[in-house]
Amino acid sequence: MTLTGPVEVVGVGLLGTSVALACRRAGLDVLLSDVSPEHLRTASGLGAGRPRAEDDRPQLVVVAVPPDHLATSVVDALQGTGAVVTDVGSVKEAPLRAVLSEVGVDDAARYVGSHPMAGSERSGPLAASSALFDGRPWAVVPHGGSAPDAVALVEALAVLCGAATVRLSPADHDRAVARTSHLPHLAAVLVAGRLADAPADHLALSGQGLRDVTRVAGSDPRLWEQIVSANDQAVLGVLGEVREQLDTLIDALTTGERPGLHDVLSRGVAGTRAIPGKHGGPARPVRAVFVSVPDHPGELARLFADAGASEVNIEDVRIDHDPARPVGLVELLVEEVRADHLLVSLESRGWVTHR
Amino acid sequence: MTLTGPVEVVGVGLLGTSVALACRRAGLDVLLSDVSPEHLRTASGLGAGRPRAEDDRPQLVVVAVPPDHLATSVVDALQGTGAVVTDVGSVKEAPLRAVLSEVGVDDAARYVGSHPMAGSERSGPLAASSALFDGRPWAVVPHGGSAPDAVALVEALAVLCGAATVRLSPADHDRAVARTSHLPHLAAVLVAGRLADAPADHLALSGQGLRDVTRVAGSDPRLWEQIVSANDQAVLGVLGEVREQLDTLIDALTTGERPGLHDVLSRGVAGTRAIPGKHGGPARPVRAVFVSVPDHPGELARLFADAGASEVNIEDVRIDHDPARPVGLVELLVEEVRADHLLVSLESRGWVTHR
Repeated sequence: MTLTGPVEVVGVGLLGTSVALACRRAGLDVLLSDVSPEHLRTASGLGAGRPRAEDDRPQLVVVAVPPDHLATSVVDALQGTGAVVTDVGSVKEAPLRAVLSEVGVDDAARYVGSHPMAGSERSGPLAASSALFDGRPWAVVPHGGSAPDAVALVEALAVLCGAATVRLSPADHDRAVARTSHLPHLAAVLVAGRLADAPADHLALSGQGLRDVTRVAGSDPRLWEQIVSANDQAVLGVLGEVREQLDTLIDALTTGERPGLHDVLSRGVAGTRAIPGKHGGPARPVRAVFVSVPDHPGELARLFADAGASEVNIEDVRIDHDPARPVGLVELLVEEVRADHLLVSLESRGWVTHR
Repeated sequence: MTLTGPVEVVGVGLLGTSVALACRRAGLDVLLSDVSPEHLRTASGLGAGRPRAEDDRPQLVVVAVPPDHLATSVVDALQGTGAVVTDVGSVKEAPLRAVLSEVGVDDAARYVGSHPMAGSERSGPLAASSALFDGRPWAVVPHGGSAPDAVALVEALAVLCGAATVRLSPADHDRAVARTSHLPHLAAVLVAGRLADAPADHLALSGQGLRDVTRVAGSDPRLWEQIVSANDQAVLGVLGEVREQLDTLIDALTTGERPGLHDVLSRGVAGTRAIPGKHGGPARPVRAVFVSVPDHPGELARLFADAGASEVNIEDVRIDHDPARPVGLVELLVEEVRADHLLVSLESRGWVTHR
């Protein structure tokens, strides 16, 4: 089945409007609906599509509403149209169960859940972009009764949005995000939660490590409350594992038993190495090159121009937040075999590097 | 007391050699010692100073050995010289107690602990740099019997190294780093530890959030075993708090009690807002500007040149790791009031931004 449209997007927040914009970019007819007339006007105004009319017949409906309302909207779309229906929710099993309890086998065959791994700490249609999914993983999550044609259509949507599809069962998907998304989020929340009442002179010692660990904890609590509630069983599973390891850690520290402590720490190192590298391949060895950069407009431009002139591809950049002094420490992550070349090249252009 | 040298550095790893290089940069005579003759040769070869001779009389001794050997080295330095003695260890109370049990009041007056908040995932003298401490916080941690002159000399060293001094008592220092450094490290370890045995198709859904939360967990377990053991009481204190919050979270998820869940999540948001902003001031409101960038050498340079031309100071940069596609999503953090100007400016130069 070829994706020819029209595509209906139900819920024009960040994700829904971004899907709509990507479909418009590909020349498809896009129909929009939302409980908020204001969001609907905004999304239409951005060129994301036109409000859905009574007699429109979508080929594909994309449900992009908050987790608490997901199943109801999917059921409405299956029963109100003959279209293939997908959603972009963060959790897949619980909504699927709710949908299957409401619709017959024939309608259920047209439903294929999905989950693009993209987002932003901003929300609403104004934060949307047709490029939001460029290069991101997009989980396509059929259930046992999904029709192969319907699965192909949802995969075509993901590809049209520029994403890389990963096919998983609903149970596998939910276990995967419990571990790779919900657990890190909750761990960040627990660490950040210990800071709110700390004295200012204690927080003056905050470094980049603390900022990295806690960044995601700044996201909207109302959304995350719905996400982790919808995935409660898988999340409770990994939280139970973490609680066990935390107890092992507390015991090892209480009794001064070093091998137990070393074991927990080593397991963490192994875990960081298991995360796949950029572009999904095996992690290529990278090395950090540190450069001191005055904190003025233009200095970063000069650094990147000089780095670019050395023909080394920069895999990642990090700028250290300095308390009290106008000098930034910039960390450039580059392929290990190119690091020395970059260092020599930058030094020859007058940069202070940290070997 | 003016810092005129000679400065002796005991232990020429990353931190010790960096202190030595900063002192040499300021024209001071630097004496080096280390249990490893190879490290000593390397550090001397880098221009960090000369091996200490029998009849050298240092004005200041900087002990930069691993936590397990810290107290012994400080005692040796106090008893073997008439110099002021400091150290750069991550924990202050336990080594201080050990030192005070070994030396008299007069000798102890010459000891002032300190702790520069700088490091790298690399180690050894070859990773050192005279600029390692530029703009970083440096905790200066006198004990009740430290002589004011000795405190002033250690603060002079921190300033000479380019750092911003923060004065704290040993107990406050250890409680501060338990919360801002040791807890985030251990939380990252616990999250990363849950990844090592996960199936590859689950890890394919890994996003930037997971990478940020777990990055610090990749550090040397042997060093961290010593750090958290030396600060066991303060670390056990915050781990106990986290265990309590984790139990609250598990209870709320088990019983489906949403207000309890919301409360834990909201506390996390408050915590991220308590972390001081760049340059130590109150956190200025920043906004993220997202730009799609082809993953080729030179493209980042072009982006930063264009951003620089718009005269907006970039507070932080993040490059999203994309699985499977050669398009990067670059996040530029800028002052909120300048974000729209930057967006318009970049768009007028042909960049795809994500509003």
